[in-house]
Formats: sequence, structure tokens, C-alpha cells
Amino acid sequence: MASQSVFLAVPEPVQAKASTALRVAIVGFGTVGSSVARILSDGGFPGLELTHVFNRNVDRKRASWVSPSVQWTQDFNEVLESDVEVLVEVVGGLEPARSWLKAALQAGKSVVTANKQLIARYGRELSHIASQNECQLLFGASVAGGVPVITAVENGLSGDQILSVCGILNGTCNYILSKMEEGQSFSDALKQAQALGYAEADPTDDVQGYDTRAKLVILARVALGAELCLEDVPCSAISNVVPVDFEYAHDLGCTIRQVGEAHVTTGHAFATVEPMLVRRDSPLARARGCENVVITRGKFAGSTAFSGPGAGGNATAVAVVSDLVTLSENRSVATVHAAKKFDKAKDCVAPYYLRFIVKDRPGIVASIAAELARFEINVDAVFQKPGYDKSHLPFVITVEACSAAKLAAALREISRSDFLVEAPLMLRIFGQ
Amino acid sequence: MASQSVFLAVPEPVQAKASTALRVAIVGFGTVGSSVARILSDGGFPGLELTHVFNRNVDRKRASWVSPSVQWTQDFNEVLESDVEVLVEVVGGLEPARSWLKAALQAGKSVVTANKQLIARYGRELSHIASQNECQLLFGASVAGGVPVITAVENGLSGDQILSVCGILNGTCNYILSKMEEGQSFSDALKQAQALGYAEADPTDDVQGYDTRAKLVILARVALGAELCLEDVPCSAISNVVPVDFEYAHDLGCTIRQVGEAHVTTGHAFATVEPMLVRRDSPLARARGCENVVITRGKFAGSTAFSGPGAGGNATAVAVVSDLVTLSENRSVATVHAAKKFDKAKDCVAPYYLRFIVKDRPGIVASIAAELARFEINVDAVFQKPGYDKSHLPFVITVEACSAAKLAAALREISRSDFLVEAPLMLRIFGQ
Repeated sequence: MASQSVFLAVPEPVQAKASTALRVAIVGFGTVGSSVARILSDGGFPGLELTHVFNRNVDRKRASWVSPSVQWTQDFNEVLESDVEVLVEVVGGLEPARSWLKAALQAGKSVVTANKQLIARYGRELSHIASQNECQLLFGASVAGGVPVITAVENGLSGDQILSVCGILNGTCNYILSKMEEGQSFSDALKQAQALGYAEADPTDDVQGYDTRAKLVILARVALGAELCLEDVPCSAISNVVPVDFEYAHDLGCTIRQVGEAHVTTGHAFATVEPMLVRRDSPLARARGCENVVITRGKFAGSTAFSGPGAGGNATAVAVVSDLVTLSENRSVATVHAAKKFDKAKDCVAPYYLRFIVKDRPGIVASIAAELARFEINVDAVFQKPGYDKSHLPFVITVEACSAAKLAAALREISRSDFLVEAPLMLRIFGQ
Repeated sequence: MASQSVFLAVPEPVQAKASTALRVAIVGFGTVGSSVARILSDGGFPGLELTHVFNRNVDRKRASWVSPSVQWTQDFNEVLESDVEVLVEVVGGLEPARSWLKAALQAGKSVVTANKQLIARYGRELSHIASQNECQLLFGASVAGGVPVITAVENGLSGDQILSVCGILNGTCNYILSKMEEGQSFSDALKQAQALGYAEADPTDDVQGYDTRAKLVILARVALGAELCLEDVPCSAISNVVPVDFEYAHDLGCTIRQVGEAHVTTGHAFATVEPMLVRRDSPLARARGCENVVITRGKFAGSTAFSGPGAGGNATAVAVVSDLVTLSENRSVATVHAAKKFDKAKDCVAPYYLRFIVKDRPGIVASIAAELARFEINVDAVFQKPGYDKSHLPFVITVEACSAAKLAAALREISRSDFLVEAPLMLRIFGQ
């Protein structure tokens, strides 16, 4: 019963590393960039040598804990013309990042980046340039921070045929929705997230789903082999969800989360970013705070889930350094993902949650049910909690699996009704 | 609100694969072997060509759905002397597997294996032979079936310094403990697991923790760089747990799971396989049926969790085929894991759950508490549920974090007491 373990002395010598270390430049010395520098300065990676740090107004960035041999510069050309072998791009944004990375790859320098918007939009272009110039473009840090889902899917699940991928990919939305579940309004939860530094001053990218969408497009490329056009993945904001929706969701055994989901069926690809009802016992519901979760479903092995810190300098920096280690071990990574031919999927078929806020009077449910029936949509259940003001009365109708397009058309008709106080909310009930 | 996504036609050609497919032999055509053959026959892997199947009495194994070009043989030398480039070893056991793999590696043929006992015991030896002969030994399928934790740790988390790894690594034990949580006895739950094919006729390897131990030793090698001696990792059987332990565990916000855990601290390595109390909201508690869960904790990125199907032909076969894909893409994988120098950790310091079954009389708790105090162990709480027979009365004492060795010594003293009906049970309360 006593617990004691013994370490076996190993006589064999440790395998020799490459004789010369990989020369690395960090481009952008913000939160992630400085975390990368700290990890590289920690002594655990003899195969990696930080030689350059680029930043605008670099003088205010110089850090005494970085090796004195590192060159600090505010001239990108100095990095480009140096003997650096890999650029770590952590400046973010589309330009000048795209131009810089094209120039670096054309000069035969590999690139490791955490820039999700750039990779979602121009990843294939950049990968082709890398391929043509016999260097590499790695972007493990662009999705889910410290959760190594890109690597796991590319290598560890390459023997399966992945049919769908979904996830909680935005910690800010997850934080806000968690707080709303505790009863806060959207605006209060957002303010709190901003005060804690979880949300930007302009939260549009997070709240509207654009951040999740970029990550989903990258995941779809890597996991499904589907090249999705960023603008054509529909996004619904979480700001239309109100606290009463959580009460009704709980009655259905669910909670509400911003989910990015992409799947392929015979010949078709489909992707969307929406607040959805997810079962409370699902891994998606269990993501806490800024945690990210990704679930893949394969033809052969079924579902696999990955979770961990989705944001933060250190988590993202670990993903960057892992890619650097991959490069330093001279693995020839296939960087151009095969894009299978898919047609656009016209529609999503799923059960839905519909929440109405009405000025109460007799016959409202009958009127809505009749309109739904006209579109051949079957009502599953009607829920109405007591204790609300009759002039601003929330109630919920769930409908059986139906075409989202048909349901949206039915809701457009219903929206003309004079009993509605505000537009109805339509949330997909996410299947396991 | 309508959901519709568009697939962007991609003009660039798909990157060319290697011109010739990797020639693969499957050694052992049981559940996993035939699943591997099915996946390879599915048409999704043009870079892999199944050329040989080895099995004893091979004639009874011949399958019509396998390409007629495949050679079926019961003579291992025929595989060894063929132009096969990779052997998939799915026969299990130490011999003849070890001899066969040594011969294959010495002949310059790479090996992909799911054989956890072989890799736990002789993995370093075989990796060295592979390294000397410029071929590869991959064993992603040896731990957690379809959960790509080996790959994720080796590649995706290589930029971190992993300090601990723990997991639910045996589906049989997880199934049995789940059933016991519902009130079944150990023996009934075991019989049910055997009837469903989840447990072997001889369940020793699972129940005693030897199966989990092998996987833990492999994980410790890959994730922690610690080479543990298999026999020196202590294992406690789950068969001493009784249903009442789940009742007390629930009162503590916990459930009971067989956990494998290894960690390193400054200069020391520690590993153990035991039934432990785990918090009900932890990923370890949420593993259902045969699901496996692995959690790593890194110095920089914190905790990352991986979960999915831990057993079954298809899940394990996906892990095998993923390793084959890695080989076919000619990635030079570092197969000899650096073993850092660790001394054996003498002890585990943790809070513990102690369950006693006694013939009741006044002064028992005082007597036990006095003995614990003599060993400088602090009682945290005492729990005694009503309604039990006084001649066979279960009650629980939890103790604050203490040395497991000291606690075991105290329990040896306490075990001499005449009020004990059976030996006390000591379960570690696992920290998050």
C-alpha cells in the first residue's frame, strides 16, 4: 500500500541533437513574443537559439533577462537579411504580417506563426510559397493556444478520416456566457471581461464570432481537408442571448456556449459559428473561463476531445516553441493541406430552440405553431416559466430537427406578428 | 440567422505524395490487425500498401475483402526476407514479439506497434536498434488507443516542460468502478464486464493495475523523459474498493477511479497506479465506460487534457495507421527518448481517505486518532453514515496531506487492533 517508485538508471547516452542550433527571430515582442523569449531563455532547448528580436520602437522593449548576444532591431530588413533560419511571427493582423512572411519564405526562411486571421485567409498561399522555397510554415499556435490540436489531428489522427470538428475556441465568449449563466446581463459580463483583460476594448471579433471563425477555418483545412471561404461561414453573435435563455436551457439539460462547428458529408462541407444549446454533461459545456475544447469525430475511431488553456502568453508560446522544436528536429512537415472537392452545403438540419418575448394575449402559441406547421416544422415542446411580466413575457418552443433555412423563413413570417416585443431568438440544439 | 456555408474551389494542385507507396506487413490478424487491414483497404491512404499478412494457421484468417495481391503467410521469415518496409506488430506479449521486432529492425524495417508491455519493458532497447539501423519504431497505439496523446506530447507539447502526467488508462477498470458506483459489487461488475467482452477471463492485468502501469511507464518516458522500471511502480488493485466507499467518496465531492500518475520534481521521479478519490468535476471522473483520459501539466502552459476511445479494434487501428502515415511522409522521428537523471522519489505526500470496517464499541475513533497522532498524521474529518450493522460498521477518516509511507506504517499498527473486521482501505485523494 505504501507508494514508492524507483528510477532506473539508463546507461545509454542521450541521443545527440543537431550539432548547430536553429537560429530564431521573434517578430513582435508583446505578450506572446516575450513569453517565447522567456521559454527559449530557460535553458531547456539547446537546439534553439534566439538571435534577433524585432519590434517597432524596439528600445522600450529591451529586456535584461534576454541573452546579450540577441540583436534588437526595428528594421525588418535586418532580420530578413540576417542568417536567421526561422521567424516567429506574433505581431498579428493581415498587414504588414502577410508581406513580411511572404518575403521571409521567399528568402527560404521558415515561419512559425500564431496569426489565426492571416492563416485562415492566406494560409494556403503562404504554404505554397514555403513549399516552393523548401522551407516550412507552421501555425500550431493559431488555434486553441496551448492545446496541441493541430499537431494531434495532423499526426496522431492522420490514420482516421475526420468527418466533423467542433469546439469552444474563444475564451472571451466562454467567460461572458459563464457569467450570464450566473445571472449577469451580457453588457455587465462584457464589462467584467474587459476589466479583467479577457476582452478587448472593441470586442467585436470575439462576440460576433469572427475569432472563432478564423480558427474553425484552419481546423476545417487541417482536419477535414475542406478549404472554406472565411466570409461564407455564417456567424451569429452571442449578444442576443439573455439570462432567461439559460434558465430554459437548464430545463432542457443544456447550457449555452459559442460553438464553432464544421462537418463534411458525401460531397458537401458545412460550417457555422453560433451560440448553441449544448448538453450540460458534454465536454463543450464543461469548458471553464478561458479554456478551449476541440472535439473531432472520425469515421473509424469516433470522438476524441482535446482541452486546455486556449489563450495567454505562455500557452500560446508553448505552441510556438513546439513548432520550433519540430523544425529543429528537421522533420519535413507537409505544409500544403490537400483540399478535397466539396460542394457548399445548402442547409443545416438540426433541432432548434426558439425563444419569444411577447405582450401576452390568448392564442399566441397557436398562432406560432400554425406558422411553423405551414413550413412543415414540428413543435417538440413548449416551455413557459411563471413569474414574468405579461407585457414582456418570455417563452420557449423547441422544434424537432428541421431545415435551418426553412425555420428562419418561418420566423421571418412570425416576426411580423404584433404580439412580439422583440425579434425571436433561434439557437441550434447541438447533437452529441 | 440562416446557416449556409460555401466551399471555396481551390485552384492549386494537391501536393504530390511520394511516388511509391510504403509497403506494409500486418503481423497478427486479430481484432486490431484486421481493423488496420480494413482501414488500409478503404482507399483513403494511397501512400500505404498492404503487401503481407502474417498469422499462425493463416488459412483460417484469409479475408475476401483484402486485396488479392496481399500475401498471407504463417512463416515470419517470409515477411522478414520480403521487400516489406514496415511491420505492424499487433500480436502482443513479450515473446516472440520482441525477437521478431529485433530481427525486423536489424533488417532495416521500421516497426509500428500497439504492444504496451513490450514497449514499456524493452522500448528503449528496440529504439536503439532502430536508431542504429536507420529505421523507426513508432508506438502511438500502445497508450490510450485512439487518443493521440503520444503524438500530442512528443510534438505539440514539446515546447513545454511537462512536470506530471496522469490518466484513466484502463477501460475495464473504469467500467467496473462505474458499475460499482451504481451499487454493484466488484465481483458482479467484473462478471458483467467479462460477459460484455470488456474484461478478459483472467482479469489480473487490468484489475491489479499492470495494464495501466505499462502505459504509464511509456507516458513517463515520452512526456517526462523519465525511464521508470516497470516492477518498481507500485500498483494497488481496485478489488479492495466496496460500494460503500463510493457513498463516502460522494460526500467528499469525489468518485473513485483507477488512476495512473507520474510526476517529476527537482531531481526526483515518482509514479504509482492506484484507485484514488478524484473530484467529480475533474476530467478523470468524467471518463465513461471504456473512455481513456490523459492529463499533462506543463511548467509553462498548465494542464492539457486528451480523451477518447481507449480501446477497441478501430480506435487502436487508427493510431497504428496514423503512425504508418507518419512513416510514409518520411518524417525523421526521434525515437530514442532522452532520459533525464532522476533519483527515486522516496514517498508520496498527499491527503488520504481511510476506510475502516469494525465491530463497534466505544473508543475506536479515539484509538485510531491516537495512533495516527503518534505518526504525526493530522485527521481532517471523520464520517460515519447511519444504518449499518454494528458488528460490521464502516466509517471513514480523512487525513491531511502526509507521507504515504508513514501512513502505511500507522495503519500496520492500527491493523493489530481487535476491533477491525477487515484490513483498512487507504485511498489517495487526488489533487487537481
